[in-house]
Amino acid sequence: MKLKDLGEFGFIDRIAHLLTTHDSRVVKGIGDDCAVIQISEDTNLLVTTDLLIERTHFLLDWQSAQTLGSKALSVNLSDIAACGGIPKEAFVSLAIPDRLGIEWLEDFYTGMAGVADRFGVSVIGGDTTHSLSDLVINVVVTGLVGTQEVLLRNGARPGDIVALTGPVGDSAAGLESLRKLTSVPSHLSSTLINAHLNPRPHIQEGRKLAQSHVCHAAIDISDGLSSDLGHVCKQSGLGAIIFEDKIPVSEPLEKFAQEMDVNPFDWALNGGEDYVLLAAIDKGNFRQLAKVAATDGWALIEIGEFLSEPGMTLSKVSGEKISIIPRGWDHFRS
Amino acid sequence: MKLKDLGEFGFIDRIAHLLTTHDSRVVKGIGDDCAVIQISEDTNLLVTTDLLIERTHFLLDWQSAQTLGSKALSVNLSDIAACGGIPKEAFVSLAIPDRLGIEWLEDFYTGMAGVADRFGVSVIGGDTTHSLSDLVINVVVTGLVGTQEVLLRNGARPGDIVALTGPVGDSAAGLESLRKLTSVPSHLSSTLINAHLNPRPHIQEGRKLAQSHVCHAAIDISDGLSSDLGHVCKQSGLGAIIFEDKIPVSEPLEKFAQEMDVNPFDWALNGGEDYVLLAAIDKGNFRQLAKVAATDGWALIEIGEFLSEPGMTLSKVSGEKISIIPRGWDHFRS
Repeated sequence: MKLKDLGEFGFIDRIAHLLTTHDSRVVKGIGDDCAVIQISEDTNLLVTTDLLIERTHFLLDWQSAQTLGSKALSVNLSDIAACGGIPKEAFVSLAIPDRLGIEWLEDFYTGMAGVADRFGVSVIGGDTTHSLSDLVINVVVTGLVGTQEVLLRNGARPGDIVALTGPVGDSAAGLESLRKLTSVPSHLSSTLINAHLNPRPHIQEGRKLAQSHVCHAAIDISDGLSSDLGHVCKQSGLGAIIFEDKIPVSEPLEKFAQEMDVNPFDWALNGGEDYVLLAAIDKGNFRQLAKVAATDGWALIEIGEFLSEPGMTLSKVSGEKISIIPRGWDHFRS
Repeated sequence: MKLKDLGEFGFIDRIAHLLTTHDSRVVKGIGDDCAVIQISEDTNLLVTTDLLIERTHFLLDWQSAQTLGSKALSVNLSDIAACGGIPKEAFVSLAIPDRLGIEWLEDFYTGMAGVADRFGVSVIGGDTTHSLSDLVINVVVTGLVGTQEVLLRNGARPGDIVALTGPVGDSAAGLESLRKLTSVPSHLSSTLINAHLNPRPHIQEGRKLAQSHVCHAAIDISDGLSSDLGHVCKQSGLGAIIFEDKIPVSEPLEKFAQEMDVNPFDWALNGGEDYVLLAAIDKGNFRQLAKVAATDGWALIEIGEFLSEPGMTLSKVSGEKISIIPRGWDHFRS
């Protein structure tokens, strides 16, 4: 059977039975943003890893060495953020084709070091080797989070507010803009392209959510809102309704969508790589937390509610209610 | 400048200044078998990662899915062994080309699970994605070791015995045998090929060395004896002399070398991928430890001595003394 018939998540289900856990310290294994391992009475270790392949995940024509270095680290920091953790160490492995010289690699590490310094992360290991074709980047990040703080995908409860920590869709529109570069007004595309090439991991937001003790579950929007909300629903055994008019889309995205004559909510719902957080917040405490967030200078935007019945519904601006089919990124199916 | 002019280790030196350590918990960063991070008063976390690329590190024509899965984990366990640690968790990322179906992948994970179960390792995370060309495998392994036990490369002292925990050269001869498969008698090649395709990580040996408190430094033989001894010498600020007639070579290797009309010590010295441990053992305690090892059923073979003067010397069977030039594997130069 081919992987494209099975999909990434079908594949994970298929091989999961082969992989036994020998360690009672493992709080959470495969299937969340990070693996979670208890290392002391009050502390969990978080581990996340991302494998980025040239032509699958990025094109060197579109992305400078420096932004590639910063993004490769940022997307892993975003996984730590989704678990409410403090990032600590990074391990960077590269398989390098001959065409990339040392100057390119210095730029790559300069970009990565900028993000590492900003978030207090130490790059302390990895592996470097030779590739005969594509550039390969693997980044591993470890982090720490309190055992009472850790945010997982499976903790959402019926009635919890579905909330986002920032706008969605910019990254997908930025990618579209890169694809059609010549036909797009540059004052619009630069913000969107930047969202795609240089996303900010929501570490601060993740910490605030974890420390609030009223956030029951979280995930970062990497596959796309429809997919990632689907992951939380599936793992929490719930459904959800979200409201199109509440989904935060940026002004550049709205204008760009107008120019391109497409619905901005298609990008917002199914785009992916936004790296904002989606959180399940206790209903009775949502308003208070949103107020604190506003004072602190971060966003917490209500877009819907978790429901005890399975299935995801989008309530459209028109009033029409439609089923959400997770349409985010699956590398084997795209 | 091209990487092949700089070499893997020159490259690491060149980018090291870009990577700041923010964390006082980091005992050892780049430049050892594992990164070492203190996580409690008496415990260090070990982290190691290896990136394996098709056509650079392996050919699918030569290696079954199952042995590739077991080897990909074993080589990382070997790094944990070199630091004296107990392996705990593994994270496996794959970039999969279309030509590999789910059955191949199930075999791969079956091979990996065999090694994981044998050494009590839990495979609890990773990333799976699509590759347009080569199969890419990244494995990360975490382990634990006492803060008073951890073995690093930089601790060797003048007068320490250079010792190995097993024979060297089999893996390189096995690789040569795979290259020339038709011309090699199969009763010889099977042992050697197995050493190459299915190496055993010396976890037990690493633990015994760590617990002995008379082992000052260790490394696993992955790049080759000449290179890996060179790493310990350089990081400990020492030199060494080793004796050709003491270097342990297996009977199949000797016979195979005879058939091929080559010197078996060339493979033993420069081959690599043996995954036995090289250790610096306190001279006064070596004999006692070797006796304990023999009783316990593991090997500790004296091959030379660390010296306060830099430079590595090979004392040949003929009595001639020659300088050892590290000739082990460098992916950018090979």
